Amino acid sequence: MERKCPVARHRPVNYVVEARPEALPDAVRKEAKRTFLNWVGCAVGGSHHETLDIAIAALSPFAGAGTSSILGRAERTDPLHAALFNGISSHVFDFDDTHLRTVIHPAGPVASALLAYAEYRPVTGPDFINALVLGVEVECRIGKAVFPAHYDVGWHITGTTGVFGAAAAVGKLLGLDAQRMAWAFGLAATQPVGLRDMFGTMTKSFHPGRAAQNGFTAALLAQKGYTSSEQGIEAKRGWANVLSTSRNYDEITENLGKSYEISVNSYKPFACGIVIHPTIDGCIQLRNAEHLDPTLIRSVDLRVHHLVLELTGKTAPKTGLEGKFSVYHAAAMAFIDGTGGEKQFSNEAVVNPNVIALRERIKATVDPAIAPDEVRITVTLMDGTVIEHHVPHAIGSIARPMTDADLERKFQDLADDILGPQRVKELLAQCWDLERFNDVGKLSAAARL
Amino acid sequence: MERKCPVARHRPVNYVVEARPEALPDAVRKEAKRTFLNWVGCAVGGSHHETLDIAIAALSPFAGAGTSSILGRAERTDPLHAALFNGISSHVFDFDDTHLRTVIHPAGPVASALLAYAEYRPVTGPDFINALVLGVEVECRIGKAVFPAHYDVGWHITGTTGVFGAAAAVGKLLGLDAQRMAWAFGLAATQPVGLRDMFGTMTKSFHPGRAAQNGFTAALLAQKGYTSSEQGIEAKRGWANVLSTSRNYDEITENLGKSYEISVNSYKPFACGIVIHPTIDGCIQLRNAEHLDPTLIRSVDLRVHHLVLELTGKTAPKTGLEGKFSVYHAAAMAFIDGTGGEKQFSNEAVVNPNVIALRERIKATVDPAIAPDEVRITVTLMDGTVIEHHVPHAIGSIARPMTDADLERKFQDLADDILGPQRVKELLAQCWDLERFNDVGKLSAAARL
Repeated sequence: MERKCPVARHRPVNYVVEARPEALPDAVRKEAKRTFLNWVGCAVGGSHHETLDIAIAALSPFAGAGTSSILGRAERTDPLHAALFNGISSHVFDFDDTHLRTVIHPAGPVASALLAYAEYRPVTGPDFINALVLGVEVECRIGKAVFPAHYDVGWHITGTTGVFGAAAAVGKLLGLDAQRMAWAFGLAATQPVGLRDMFGTMTKSFHPGRAAQNGFTAALLAQKGYTSSEQGIEAKRGWANVLSTSRNYDEITENLGKSYEISVNSYKPFACGIVIHPTIDGCIQLRNAEHLDPTLIRSVDLRVHHLVLELTGKTAPKTGLEGKFSVYHAAAMAFIDGTGGEKQFSNEAVVNPNVIALRERIKATVDPAIAPDEVRITVTLMDGTVIEHHVPHAIGSIARPMTDADLERKFQDLADDILGPQRVKELLAQCWDLERFNDVGKLSAAARL
Repeated sequence: MERKCPVARHRPVNYVVEARPEALPDAVRKEAKRTFLNWVGCAVGGSHHETLDIAIAALSPFAGAGTSSILGRAERTDPLHAALFNGISSHVFDFDDTHLRTVIHPAGPVASALLAYAEYRPVTGPDFINALVLGVEVECRIGKAVFPAHYDVGWHITGTTGVFGAAAAVGKLLGLDAQRMAWAFGLAATQPVGLRDMFGTMTKSFHPGRAAQNGFTAALLAQKGYTSSEQGIEAKRGWANVLSTSRNYDEITENLGKSYEISVNSYKPFACGIVIHPTIDGCIQLRNAEHLDPTLIRSVDLRVHHLVLELTGKTAPKTGLEGKFSVYHAAAMAFIDGTGGEKQFSNEAVVNPNVIALRERIKATVDPAIAPDEVRITVTLMDGTVIEHHVPHAIGSIARPMTDADLERKFQDLADDILGPQRVKELLAQCWDLERFNDVGKLSAAARL
């Protein structure tokens, strides 16, 4: 018999029900705006990817009244489909935010649901920020309780915990009481999304979108009195026992309302999985400092964290999407182009003979002494020269976060071609001004065509 | 490293893509009609349960164009929501069909998706029956590959395998090629629904409905080219490895096209979980044969299969729904009322003092020698008389199936009050005549208000 944990049952539910916008520290509010801004940029940037074109073509014939925006596009759709579509586009470049401790991408499931709701029913800036903070808190704390075992089992943790985040966030806006919030958590628990086997296909981006849609649905059902388990997370046959081989409920309950997971959210400077960012960062630094000619590189030895090879060990990617799962391709592109944007992960880039030639001269070795945001690089040139380089903390890590200006530049790179520079500037200003909105849904007008 | 199983990957997909209606044996076609008829009756019968009222109230504001029926009701909705709603109502009384080997309720996920689709795009009777047979085949074979381990972990197997059944069935009607069918299976794999902790709440009925909706969605996305894993079931981080502790892929591939899982589908004479049917059947037999006065019963000893206490061991149910998870309540009602319909599992019935008094005199003991469809009952009367009774095979089991006339009576009991006896007769005739329909969707006209 497993031990029941009534503390875990009630405390997060009550916390979400009771948490008030004015209790949030300024720094948390600020980080929520950075999280939101980064999410909007990613969703707009991904909005014309074929993954989203296909999803919209397949499901729009069944959508309801078009109250809500598909960011970056002209179509409008019902809030549940908007949550799905914006969740897909925000993740399609693997460029969205990362809660490093759990590798959850927190904004996709939560913000996609929240903005879709805010266009359906008015939500003030402070309420929106509060719900965003709470949704991120819930998904990341549940993630911490089961990471890494749950992830090791094979679950895409963004989709499985994101459902709770979306349910909590939308449930908060709906004003659910504790009973109904508990049911919303139960309905979220029973709808996990995402197997890791889907990585490298369009279905990976489906996960945060469907998590947003499922969590939103859970909150709507609970609001009307649709009953569910009140121990959906911690019961013997609840989420944490069924979907993980170990669990620590203290991670869910300790310091609630004192520490905030959104405070340790991070944003990606490069358009691929976070685990290869130290490598890309280090290769760019080396390239620029040493004025390296890629054709003169005889070999590159990377000493990396174990997740790098586990997640991004593809040696011969055939598509741009597969390239994001190849530390070798990413390193080669960093040496050749000096950056790691969407273009460096195009279908053309991975079959470029110069890229292939360099990537085949790159080796990666797992080193237990290397942290997730760290890399050690040894380059040997054709003339025998050996250059060593150490990146203790990659750009975009907690220790070396992107600045507000970095985030704006990233946003512009993603969105300028789609919305035009003038509207992007307006949109950036609105994101920073989020707290002063009486009706956050109006912000979307600047974010759609 | 787990062994990849390319046979499992391709054979079921190719089988579904290639299977033709005219290849079905007559007996299989007949059983498909019995499965469909029983499902329609259950969905109509459950259509005014508050569970469905709430689901419709919560989600209809977001539904699309009303092409498809909610059986037993006047509202129409989009096909994806119709799949959800009809799946909920068909399971809400726990009165639907059961694939005994896996305890899957096969029709809910598959037929709910199929009929909703058939009202959106015309489907002939033979194609409809073929898709229904294939959907049931896929979900039950995948279930057999992981049962009982997957169920023991805590998954509600109807929801987790039902997604595949719905995806295969709708994918068949959409005419998916092998590549797209494989993606539909991948998209199904990544959207499992249902934790067993939800049993006893409205969320249990949500599972077959959401499975229908998710599988339908998977097929629609795959049709338009939304890519997914091609080894969604058997990959290292695919469905069978992540959601089960053991698996036997031979169950999926052996005798495909030779044996049919729908041939071993069973239908419930009583409105509760199948595991307590032998007990209800036996208590009714005893009551009728011995003209038992319930107040003269001193004690009842039941010797039961282990699943009886695992699933239905509630000693003091407080709601009608909880009563379905109490072998004690069910036995008491069988002695008192001589039946086990919906009324015997009402909120009033479980708090009736006479029922409570009898139920407290009933004991159940697990006996490893007892089969799932078997029970041994010992009744001791107040005067010391001891009566023993053995039910080797409960009514509704494979060995003692309900006849067509039994199924019609059950259908009438469920639907007469809702549709009226005349329309019920028409509907029954249409179900038996399913093969001759040019457009199965037209059948729904008789099944809605």
